[in-house]
Amino acid sequence: MAISAQAGPAVEACFLSSILEAVDLALSSAKRPVALHEPRFGARERELVMDCVDTGWVSSAGRYVTLFEEMVASAVGVPHAVAVVNGTTALHAALVLEGVRPGDEVIVPSITFVATANAVSHAGAVPHFVDSTWMTMGLDPVALDEHLQQVSERRDGQLFNRQTGRRIRAVVPVHVFGHPVDVPQLQALLAKYDLIFIEDATESLGSTWKGQACGTFGHSAVLSFNGNKIITTGGGGMILTADDQYARRARHLTTTAKIAHQWAFEHDEVGYNYRLPNINAALGCGQVERLPEMVAAKRALATRYMQVFENVSGARIFREPGGAASNYWLNTLVLDREFSDERDALLSMLHANGIQARPLWTPLHLLPMYSDCPRAPLPVAEDMFTRCINLPSSPFLSGERN
Amino acid sequence: MAISAQAGPAVEACFLSSILEAVDLALSSAKRPVALHEPRFGARERELVMDCVDTGWVSSAGRYVTLFEEMVASAVGVPHAVAVVNGTTALHAALVLEGVRPGDEVIVPSITFVATANAVSHAGAVPHFVDSTWMTMGLDPVALDEHLQQVSERRDGQLFNRQTGRRIRAVVPVHVFGHPVDVPQLQALLAKYDLIFIEDATESLGSTWKGQACGTFGHSAVLSFNGNKIITTGGGGMILTADDQYARRARHLTTTAKIAHQWAFEHDEVGYNYRLPNINAALGCGQVERLPEMVAAKRALATRYMQVFENVSGARIFREPGGAASNYWLNTLVLDREFSDERDALLSMLHANGIQARPLWTPLHLLPMYSDCPRAPLPVAEDMFTRCINLPSSPFLSGERN
Repeated sequence: MAISAQAGPAVEACFLSSILEAVDLALSSAKRPVALHEPRFGARERELVMDCVDTGWVSSAGRYVTLFEEMVASAVGVPHAVAVVNGTTALHAALVLEGVRPGDEVIVPSITFVATANAVSHAGAVPHFVDSTWMTMGLDPVALDEHLQQVSERRDGQLFNRQTGRRIRAVVPVHVFGHPVDVPQLQALLAKYDLIFIEDATESLGSTWKGQACGTFGHSAVLSFNGNKIITTGGGGMILTADDQYARRARHLTTTAKIAHQWAFEHDEVGYNYRLPNINAALGCGQVERLPEMVAAKRALATRYMQVFENVSGARIFREPGGAASNYWLNTLVLDREFSDERDALLSMLHANGIQARPLWTPLHLLPMYSDCPRAPLPVAEDMFTRCINLPSSPFLSGERN
Repeated sequence: MAISAQAGPAVEACFLSSILEAVDLALSSAKRPVALHEPRFGARERELVMDCVDTGWVSSAGRYVTLFEEMVASAVGVPHAVAVVNGTTALHAALVLEGVRPGDEVIVPSITFVATANAVSHAGAVPHFVDSTWMTMGLDPVALDEHLQQVSERRDGQLFNRQTGRRIRAVVPVHVFGHPVDVPQLQALLAKYDLIFIEDATESLGSTWKGQACGTFGHSAVLSFNGNKIITTGGGGMILTADDQYARRARHLTTTAKIAHQWAFEHDEVGYNYRLPNINAALGCGQVERLPEMVAAKRALATRYMQVFENVSGARIFREPGGAASNYWLNTLVLDREFSDERDALLSMLHANGIQARPLWTPLHLLPMYSDCPRAPLPVAEDMFTRCINLPSSPFLSGERN
């Protein structure tokens, strides 16, 4: 970019080494290489997993699946939780359950992991990309409102995209890197347009907005327990909701839609085999117990990063938006515009020094399979992509290991 | 059914108690209740699973996934194996990879677990049900040939259903309860009609036909490692193929279609998050080592059932077809026609006595969501459903526990 011509080679070299120095300082107690995010297990996880192997209850019928659901529901403060094999399948099922049908459009941010848009595709629907805001790193309600005013119209009580003719059914905001989106603005907006709010909370277990947990704001929400998340089941996900009937259908649809019977195999709709195995749920039961400790450790690490970067010029650590308490799933270094051309050089240098940093996900509208999808103007998404780097964020890196 | 009027109440009572007596005798060394199928784990599984928890490598990036794939590929004798979260997702991905497209028809037996048809639906295609044969309990090649002669026509080098206008793209035969279908007849038939052979080997790991393993006959095949299968990973599945390019694409499509890069997140098609977690694969590595022992134990149990039922009139144990060596995943008691009305009374009695027998799956064309799908005449499928009961089939029930 033209702007970076302001920074000559000497300035660039100085910038790069000052960043490396700061990251090295923040991670001084960690052995190299430092992974982007690693789980932490202890005696409790070992005990629960061994109980599965010892009793033979490793598959979907065991008692840990229900226990894990109850523990997560309690931790989040939501009435119902349905455990599935991962976050993608959780979102796919949630979309189907919310009535998203083939040919519908679903609004998602362009800055998110590809699974958000893939789940929309798996439901036969079309992702419609909207911009993000630097306030939260998540979906921008103001930009969304402006965009919908321009492209949408109501017909027969439903919202349609005038340009494509397709129904716009739902919005899937993502609490990117754990930072809550602007919840009240978004809720007001979705109410105005009568759009369904499906909350992608895959990165934000343990985050809150004004004391209320992420995962409780949408009509339904989804979690991920992938190996890189704040707590993990190896692979796993969950659908959360306060709606009793929705929860019952979620459980039914994700377990092959089998009608309960002592022996007969009857199914009453095309279901999915998405149920989480018991051995993964057992690992999760041990992990949920650590959630408060994990959130505290990750917030301590974020504070540490902020401290060391206070005196570094040309870059800053992204801070949670006002009103929010983020789990800081992944810490984000934001480069000043004049250094946006240095992102890849910085990534190379960090990797060469055993620090597994990474850039943002490529904005989804730039991927070949999504390049023709409907979209709003996406200047912030593209700007974020050029200037953000995720730093190692495992909870124990804060040096408060216990 | 009218025929059962031949058997009066006294004969029925005598029949039921003779069956219970025989099952009780076959399972004499087993504690009540006797489950339909339970896994067997030992020190090796504990060690491998603990290694995952101890090292933190529980998710999809760990080394056990690759090791498990290599071990299964070697055990089956197939060049490539791609591990996924379960058998349903394996079949869904296999159908997509074989070029099945929304609106296509895929031929499946009506007698199979609902997942076979669900996977077809998940690919946007329509299951087309054909009949089974008492020779193998699997898809009947002769009936399929007759049916295709009646309903299909070739146009532009492709096969179409004249009645629906849809393309018929592939056939998914299932080796039901571990018993191989009539492989050479079926292969000849699929070659004649130029249909793709996707082998549902979810129940038949360890079964062979003339010494060649199930899972090697189709262009691709799928396995299941659900908790009730001959070996288990809690939940898990696998795609098998000899086709290098297909295997590469299978790995790509099931891991979010991410392009390999040190840090960047680029994806080049709509992929799936279907990769098996490492902790489940570790369990599987321990289990594959036991496969020969499991097959032997399950065959011994089948022999035991056959022995005790030799002198029981009115029912027989289903025997593997000539040329085949079945893993006898689930042993099947076939009632004589005159006792077909006794099936549910028998199931009730067995359950009341702590024996968790079950009927066949309801034939899929009788389920509400599949009742309007295209189908051949299905007299054998409906006959099987009224007269078959699966008996407890865990490997250690043969009394040869080690």
